[in-house]
Amino acid sequence: MEQEPETDNALFQENERQTPLGDGRRYFDAGDMQLKAGGFLPSVTVAYETWGELNPSRSNAVLICHALSGDSHAVGWWDRLVGPGRTIDTEKYFVVGTNVLGGCRGTTGPCSMAEDGKPYGSRFPTILVEDMVEAQKRLTEALGVGKWALVAGGSMGGMQAIQWSVQCPQMVDRVWCTASCAAHSAMQIGFNEAGRQAVLRDPAFLGGDYYPGPGPVNGLAVARMIGHLTFLSESSFASKFGRALQGKEAFSYNGGTEFAVESYLNYQGDKFNQRFDANSHLVLTRAIDYYRLESFSGAGARFLFTAFDSDWIYPSHQSRELHRLAQLAGCQSEFVEINCPWGHDAFLLEEVEQGRLVRGFLSV
Amino acid sequence: MEQEPETDNALFQENERQTPLGDGRRYFDAGDMQLKAGGFLPSVTVAYETWGELNPSRSNAVLICHALSGDSHAVGWWDRLVGPGRTIDTEKYFVVGTNVLGGCRGTTGPCSMAEDGKPYGSRFPTILVEDMVEAQKRLTEALGVGKWALVAGGSMGGMQAIQWSVQCPQMVDRVWCTASCAAHSAMQIGFNEAGRQAVLRDPAFLGGDYYPGPGPVNGLAVARMIGHLTFLSESSFASKFGRALQGKEAFSYNGGTEFAVESYLNYQGDKFNQRFDANSHLVLTRAIDYYRLESFSGAGARFLFTAFDSDWIYPSHQSRELHRLAQLAGCQSEFVEINCPWGHDAFLLEEVEQGRLVRGFLSV
Repeated sequence: MEQEPETDNALFQENERQTPLGDGRRYFDAGDMQLKAGGFLPSVTVAYETWGELNPSRSNAVLICHALSGDSHAVGWWDRLVGPGRTIDTEKYFVVGTNVLGGCRGTTGPCSMAEDGKPYGSRFPTILVEDMVEAQKRLTEALGVGKWALVAGGSMGGMQAIQWSVQCPQMVDRVWCTASCAAHSAMQIGFNEAGRQAVLRDPAFLGGDYYPGPGPVNGLAVARMIGHLTFLSESSFASKFGRALQGKEAFSYNGGTEFAVESYLNYQGDKFNQRFDANSHLVLTRAIDYYRLESFSGAGARFLFTAFDSDWIYPSHQSRELHRLAQLAGCQSEFVEINCPWGHDAFLLEEVEQGRLVRGFLSV
Repeated sequence: MEQEPETDNALFQENERQTPLGDGRRYFDAGDMQLKAGGFLPSVTVAYETWGELNPSRSNAVLICHALSGDSHAVGWWDRLVGPGRTIDTEKYFVVGTNVLGGCRGTTGPCSMAEDGKPYGSRFPTILVEDMVEAQKRLTEALGVGKWALVAGGSMGGMQAIQWSVQCPQMVDRVWCTASCAAHSAMQIGFNEAGRQAVLRDPAFLGGDYYPGPGPVNGLAVARMIGHLTFLSESSFASKFGRALQGKEAFSYNGGTEFAVESYLNYQGDKFNQRFDANSHLVLTRAIDYYRLESFSGAGARFLFTAFDSDWIYPSHQSRELHRLAQLAGCQSEFVEINCPWGHDAFLLEEVEQGRLVRGFLSV
């Protein structure tokens, strides 16, 4: 199960698409934060990266919001759409990526040191998507960006993007929200809860205070396996793995790994531990389960909503509903369901249709 | 999380639908078994129940094969279709239910005593669907049934039913296979593997030799949560739970259960430990992942295949493929996709269309 499966197919690099952090990260001191759910965080740090130059009229700034396991390095995990000559062209736009509040890639999160010099661990407060946006807003002001030409994101990143439009309506010109929703359904919450329980029920979780130990590596691996199962589609699993065996020509019948898909899932689960913190997994999955956009009332942005017909965990009817809500609030809005067999991961991987639609959206 | 959610809706009783074993079980000594995958089991016991009377021409016998977490008590878990006056009418048919080989409800399985007086545990061999059928075949002969008027089952039970038609072609008149498939896809194997890893990575698993201790109760609970997520559909989750909170009017933001769907999944996961053995979960999920029906060549039975449009884990195209394979082998076959929003669980719960189709199937 330690063996890396043959996954040269880019389709299955998925959230792993981030290149190593350069490391071009910078760190912004966002100050103290009174959180929406009641908690308090002193001296919040926001890790961020920028590409390109802000133009004199300050009209070319783009904010990229990452999904559950992403980070500030948008030219890594979203390099099919963000970079030099790409749809979100870093030679033309001033592009900013941040790590979300509660994460574990440089921004203040559960593994950060609290004021007593010990990691927050179980003491880390509940974070809402609204808090993620507030932290980004403070950075925005510090960067001298008055209004984002575009706030873009998929999945959890899409929630941040739509929240920007109602929380800071004067600061957003356009929102591109892909493979996301106004609020998680019971089934989406359920899949997140199964992953959380895999972590919480791992004895190595130690109530969340496992630092600097390895922590609940088995629980987090299982949570990541559940995640991967929801990121792909039946047909993408079938075309990549089918019933292929893992490194053998016949079954071993010995209780070990038999199928390539088993090896792939275990590999992804174990590898996730090298770059992600179990407490952040809890904090961030809870944040997106809590999230609910009731209305776009007050938003002044133009909206582009995209979704994928094979995405069964963020089904396209959820993006259609976002489009309907935007129209209801009197906003300019477009919704396109893209035909693509790759499931939820398509938002990271599909570049042709998303690229065409976003270029059109940015040109008007 | 210990609190039982309000699940009076029969839709969500699912595999829990079994009434307590009466206990009308009887135990058949099936003798020694040389297993298909190479293992050996001495003195196999098959737990079974019967209802109704075998008629003088011995033409009214029906075998019911259970799914992953079922047992011999077909008038319990399948009482919408099996019982007095039901579609499979125990006043008209001689109905037999058995617990599968490798299970934990009376038939020889990993928690049974080996010849040394200790539970098999990690020593229990790999079981294939073919072995389940062989054990049932020996019971069939002992019961004096020469030919089943019907072998019926859903999901894993459907695999046994179709395997009967090719393994013992002279002994099967009709096969009704619902919500099943000829072979698991990569995605189906993947979901099973995530559940297996939840068990295998639980330190309390102890390599499988955890008897008589509680065993990997947390791992098995997570595995069952994953299972439940696949048994239902997005719309059944939405209609039952939506975003309803669990016993509160506002979020607590304290790291505990917030949503009713979370409570439901944890409750089902924990309760599963009271009636199921983690080693059986491994053995049986592996058996169905291994299973592959290549062809119905040699089968003489008539076939009815049913599937449900909302069943995303055993999608209806898999049953259509079974129908195609049956026709290819020259067998009489019918396939019906039933419109029903309940997901995979529909095979246990839907009685109107399944009942109508099976009554018609039995009358010709």
